[in-house]
Amino acid sequence: MVMHMTFTVAVAGASGYAGGEMLRLLLAHPEARIGALTAHSNAGTRLGEHAPHLRSLADRVLDRTDVDALAGHDVVVLALPHGASGAVAAELAARGDTAVVVDLGADHRLVDPVAWKEFYGTPHAGTWPYGLPELLTAGETVASGQRQHLTGATRIAVPGCNVTAVTLGLQPGVAAGLIDAVDVVAVLANGYSGAGRSLKTHLLAAEGLGAAQPYAVGGSHRHIPEIAQNLRAAGAADVTLSFTPTLVPMARGILATATARLVDGADPAAVRAAWEHTYADEPFVHLLPEGQWPTTASTLGANTALVQVAVDARAGRVVTVTAIDNLVKGTAGGALQSLNVALGLPETLGLPLDGVAP
Amino acid sequence: MVMHMTFTVAVAGASGYAGGEMLRLLLAHPEARIGALTAHSNAGTRLGEHAPHLRSLADRVLDRTDVDALAGHDVVVLALPHGASGAVAAELAARGDTAVVVDLGADHRLVDPVAWKEFYGTPHAGTWPYGLPELLTAGETVASGQRQHLTGATRIAVPGCNVTAVTLGLQPGVAAGLIDAVDVVAVLANGYSGAGRSLKTHLLAAEGLGAAQPYAVGGSHRHIPEIAQNLRAAGAADVTLSFTPTLVPMARGILATATARLVDGADPAAVRAAWEHTYADEPFVHLLPEGQWPTTASTLGANTALVQVAVDARAGRVVTVTAIDNLVKGTAGGALQSLNVALGLPETLGLPLDGVAP
Amino acid sequence: MVMHMTFTVAVAGASGYAGGEMLRLLLAHPEARIGALTAHSNAGTRLGEHAPHLRSLADRVLDRTDVDALAGHDVVVLALPHGASGAVAAELAARGDTAVVVDLGADHRLVDPVAWKEFYGTPHAGTWPYGLPELLTAGETVASGQRQHLTGATRIAVPGCNVTAVTLGLQPGVAAGLIDAVDVVAVLANGYSGAGRSLKTHLLAAEGLGAAQPYAVGGSHRHIPEIAQNLRAAGAADVTLSFTPTLVPMARGILATATARLVDGADPAAVRAAWEHTYADEPFVHLLPEGQWPTTASTLGANTALVQVAVDARAGRVVTVTAIDNLVKGTAGGALQSLNVALGLPETLGLPLDGVAP
Amino acid sequence: MVMHMTFTVAVAGASGYAGGEMLRLLLAHPEARIGALTAHSNAGTRLGEHAPHLRSLADRVLDRTDVDALAGHDVVVLALPHGASGAVAAELAARGDTAVVVDLGADHRLVDPVAWKEFYGTPHAGTWPYGLPELLTAGETVASGQRQHLTGATRIAVPGCNVTAVTLGLQPGVAAGLIDAVDVVAVLANGYSGAGRSLKTHLLAAEGLGAAQPYAVGGSHRHIPEIAQNLRAAGAADVTLSFTPTLVPMARGILATATARLVDGADPAAVRAAWEHTYADEPFVHLLPEGQWPTTASTLGANTALVQVAVDARAGRVVTVTAIDNLVKGTAGGALQSLNVALGLPETLGLPLDGVAP
Repeated sequence: MVMHMTFTVAVAGASGYAGGEMLRLLLAHPEARIGALTAHSNAGTRLGEHAPHLRSLADRVLDRTDVDALAGHDVVVLALPHGASGAVAAELAARGDTAVVVDLGADHRLVDPVAWKEFYGTPHAGTWPYGLPELLTAGETVASGQRQHLTGATRIAVPGCNVTAVTLGLQPGVAAGLIDAVDVVAVLANGYSGAGRSLKTHLLAAEGLGAAQPYAVGGSHRHIPEIAQNLRAAGAADVTLSFTPTLVPMARGILATATARLVDGADPAAVRAAWEHTYADEPFVHLLPEGQWPTTASTLGANTALVQVAVDARAGRVVTVTAIDNLVKGTAGGALQSLNVALGLPETLGLPLDGVAP
Repeated sequence: MVMHMTFTVAVAGASGYAGGEMLRLLLAHPEARIGALTAHSNAGTRLGEHAPHLRSLADRVLDRTDVDALAGHDVVVLALPHGASGAVAAELAARGDTAVVVDLGADHRLVDPVAWKEFYGTPHAGTWPYGLPELLTAGETVASGQRQHLTGATRIAVPGCNVTAVTLGLQPGVAAGLIDAVDVVAVLANGYSGAGRSLKTHLLAAEGLGAAQPYAVGGSHRHIPEIAQNLRAAGAADVTLSFTPTLVPMARGILATATARLVDGADPAAVRAAWEHTYADEPFVHLLPEGQWPTTASTLGANTALVQVAVDARAGRVVTVTAIDNLVKGTAGGALQSLNVALGLPETLGLPLDGVAP
Repeated sequence: MVMHMTFTVAVAGASGYAGGEMLRLLLAHPEARIGALTAHSNAGTRLGEHAPHLRSLADRVLDRTDVDALAGHDVVVLALPHGASGAVAAELAARGDTAVVVDLGADHRLVDPVAWKEFYGTPHAGTWPYGLPELLTAGETVASGQRQHLTGATRIAVPGCNVTAVTLGLQPGVAAGLIDAVDVVAVLANGYSGAGRSLKTHLLAAEGLGAAQPYAVGGSHRHIPEIAQNLRAAGAADVTLSFTPTLVPMARGILATATARLVDGADPAAVRAAWEHTYADEPFVHLLPEGQWPTTASTLGANTALVQVAVDARAGRVVTVTAIDNLVKGTAGGALQSLNVALGLPETLGLPLDGVAP
Repeated sequence: MVMHMTFTVAVAGASGYAGGEMLRLLLAHPEARIGALTAHSNAGTRLGEHAPHLRSLADRVLDRTDVDALAGHDVVVLALPHGASGAVAAELAARGDTAVVVDLGADHRLVDPVAWKEFYGTPHAGTWPYGLPELLTAGETVASGQRQHLTGATRIAVPGCNVTAVTLGLQPGVAAGLIDAVDVVAVLANGYSGAGRSLKTHLLAAEGLGAAQPYAVGGSHRHIPEIAQNLRAAGAADVTLSFTPTLVPMARGILATATARLVDGADPAAVRAAWEHTYADEPFVHLLPEGQWPTTASTLGANTALVQVAVDARAGRVVTVTAIDNLVKGTAGGALQSLNVALGLPETLGLPLDGVAP
């Protein structure tokens, strides 16, 4: 006997990259039934004009994003500009709509209103349960705590894509007390889909092809306080982080090189064991065999994070490299994984483990 | 009640691109059970060294490609160098092994031994049922004939990737008598995975990035007689074809621009209807709405062909553009689709329809 | 003794791709002195914000494009949107300004007002001397005619980039009576800089990376009548042309595969000799040794066209492949070459012959 | 009156990427006359087969690399595998050949034989004058010292490409006592030409397109001791360095993100001034205006380094980003610049300042 628990999903922001990826994954999920698809300026057009790769939904016409369209589903996924999701969720609640609301945006990720204000400049919209099931919580070196936190949740704040990559890379060492979260340095190679579909000159193909270009250098990127929050959750007392993303000529993918000092007196030989222990039972985080390093291409389309760690004895640092698909494990896949947990479904249900390569 | 018909599959050449893609698709197929994985020079190594994207099979050690390893499965997929598959199939048969043998190579595609000799230079290994379910056969403009030919087949010759793209683009017009298969011109933009994993200077990333480079120009490409064979199957009396593939900086994908003269006196207004009629019920071939043109990115990872057609009245030509993923619809996906037909399973079972984009 | 003939140049549209490339080449030209740089919406900003690669001019502030700024130079280069250059040239002339005006846009390329109207939809602005020194003119198989036409010219209409590539590929066969200009087929792989710097979704890096996408398919591209005009200049009585450009993931470059039927009764063995004869003394057009095919990367940054030709006896067609840098030989380099001729300078003066590869 | 000092140059390893780039630059150098071109396995073939972009030399046949071929030139450039250059230079000297020998390889860069042994494993071949004219030497914040060291040199060890990028980024802060060279972290995005033309699977286009992949992670890269040597030259007492290069899908370019802790008590406001002061008069190192960050595309083909620096007050770190073309400023351009100094020519003679973009 097979028990089924189908659920209906509305997706707001369906013509963007995050919304489109959510649809791709939902189409392959055995229990999901796709309901309303909404958009802002693209309302009234066919999805196939914007996302011709989603053949199954090519002829669906997009509704305008409003609560009338989104109400009445079991799940509502919000792929909206920052600042918009709180009001939508509140309006749904005010109507008595009991949908689980999954926010792919940043509005409800940060616990600290001061950090929010400092990096976003707008009033804090409140905090929702944080959609990173693998997140270690203080005193744990396996992630049961965070999963419990998500079980039965009716609101989910999906982490930033860069945040997922850096957190997964570093947290085992933080939780095990092997690395110092003060003076962390992370530099990332990022695919262009992470910048969304906005029309900006530096995002043109003519500018990006053959180029590596950094952005938000020097401590201004909004993912910084979120990474710090996660490393504190994993057990760090203090966190300081130098964080530099760089756009490189690929459509998808994040390769995060994150390094932290080995704690004075820590045993370098304990490092690999800590990472192995943390991820031994994680379905979507894979510590590669020693000597093999992650590449983004290996994660394309999959909800997989590939991780490697090494000790640089001369430099006194632990170096981690994590590869994810920014739109899957970094956004829509992580969201669906958390939603599975929230709904009481098997966490891995319907999620791709194997990437599309070469 | 759900009827199951699971089948076991061995894959020979599992560490190459075609073999790896076959495994990716088989892992997502509800009835396939992966058996032996074999290789030539990579025998004895872990699959994860060569295909880190296939996390589900990363720890599988590759056997040496021989009949002992391949025997005893329901299906054997051969992703071998040209010339090797005939002997393997014969040895399996000699042992009484009843496996369905699917050849991703060229050995058994051509009916005409003279054409084989001319383009391949080796003795003809015989012809197997041809794995393009959508192929029109003379007198038909829907592809029931070719499907019937595959039902129950125990040998399948999978088409060349370029061949699939060009055939799907042109055959509706040939079958409908609207275009002339004499003086067809096809120019293709090809991703590098189509060239396989061989170590050649012109296949290096440093050479390919920022470059478009043609190869096999001037009538020597081995896919030429195969395209001609297909267009004759679709009803052409004579076929002549100028065919030029060009490598462009993408890992996957074929964009085939194929053009043929409108038959004298043919009604240009009948062109779109012919393509619509042919592909109306095809699950994997999609004629785009008028004015929208295919891109390879929209087919990445999917068993989908996107097709568009236009009449250039000044030039007197019909222009078709077809996009496929060379490793999916062009190789492993087309193979699995044909295998589904051969085994009596639903043709679309386990095959991805939606691409991974952007 | 060395004779010098320095000239001053103003560039209108200096913050765009064509204007920027003109500046790069002028900076390396021994006789050019760069004068006014103007822009439309970017007026008042530093060139370095838009073209950080032009270090020598990074701190130059852009003037607004108007005749006051452009007047008083020996040469004025117009890199403006279509339709704007005629008025600027007329205003300069009305003031008595004697500058040589070089138009990188399309306005003055076509001789036939009907063809202009049909493809551009606006009134014809008149025809200027055509800036393709290598263009063969009827009865000639070496290009002295066109060069003579440019000597002393005070107006130059620079050819379209695709036009240059296709014309150079095919014209030797047309002039020699070996190929038939009826039923020419050309398919091109194009880098994104050819589409300019306009903000359109399909030009985003996220859309273009990993993708090949056609545009203007089916006979609507504005370069079609210009190619036809050139092939008629080379001796063709009638021309029909199927022309399909496709964007591929490179910043620069055009690889034009252009094919035409061998004239009935023509000697295939005469083909190579015709191309050799035509280009033997051309400084910027290089017929590769037999068997070697052009790649766009080999022409990056250089005013070089690499050409190859082959006879496909089965198909009855001559296949030519031409590689150029669309911004150099296809635009700014071709312009400067023509300007050298117009000014009586050595044609090759200051122009790069060697590309930047890999 | 113009004084000329032409010199003849032989290039050993002319069919590789570094040798080819040397030739491209020498062709544009007003005083260089290209002599013997030699190769190892490609001896006897035309240069045009390997470097079709070097049209000016396409028909030159490569000699075998030996001292007979290289002797008798004013300058010999060695683009050879590590370990080979010492013997060639010694043989030339033994013959009484007085050529200036420029080594593009690593053999003579390191002063410390222990560091050499540790990272290269072979006997130390001795140290040559180091070809980075901009290198600060202790007590100086402008680079007169290093230039004097190169003037009249007859042996030049050209720096590693990554080394040049990281050194130029960090040295102003080290020399000014503003940043701590202990606990430096550098992560680089690297184009594939930096890996040379060797046939390895991970260097195939099919593997590299769409992928970011790290290599030599964890402290093993051979450029580490060389960077440390340079930072000590600039005034650092101790240096520790975490260094991670990552291959990204571009043919050329290095984007080096290098970060170091602000010295306790140092004034953040002094940072920009230090970088400005250091590079104010450098012809090839350009500190961008505040807020503008380097991209590799802006340096393509040019001997230019673009640098930017920012203080991340929260993290207590100075972040620098440096973009260079690995084959120009990182290899052949830096070599030619140093050679100009050694020969007493103007340092900038014949070197491109403006890049080829987009």
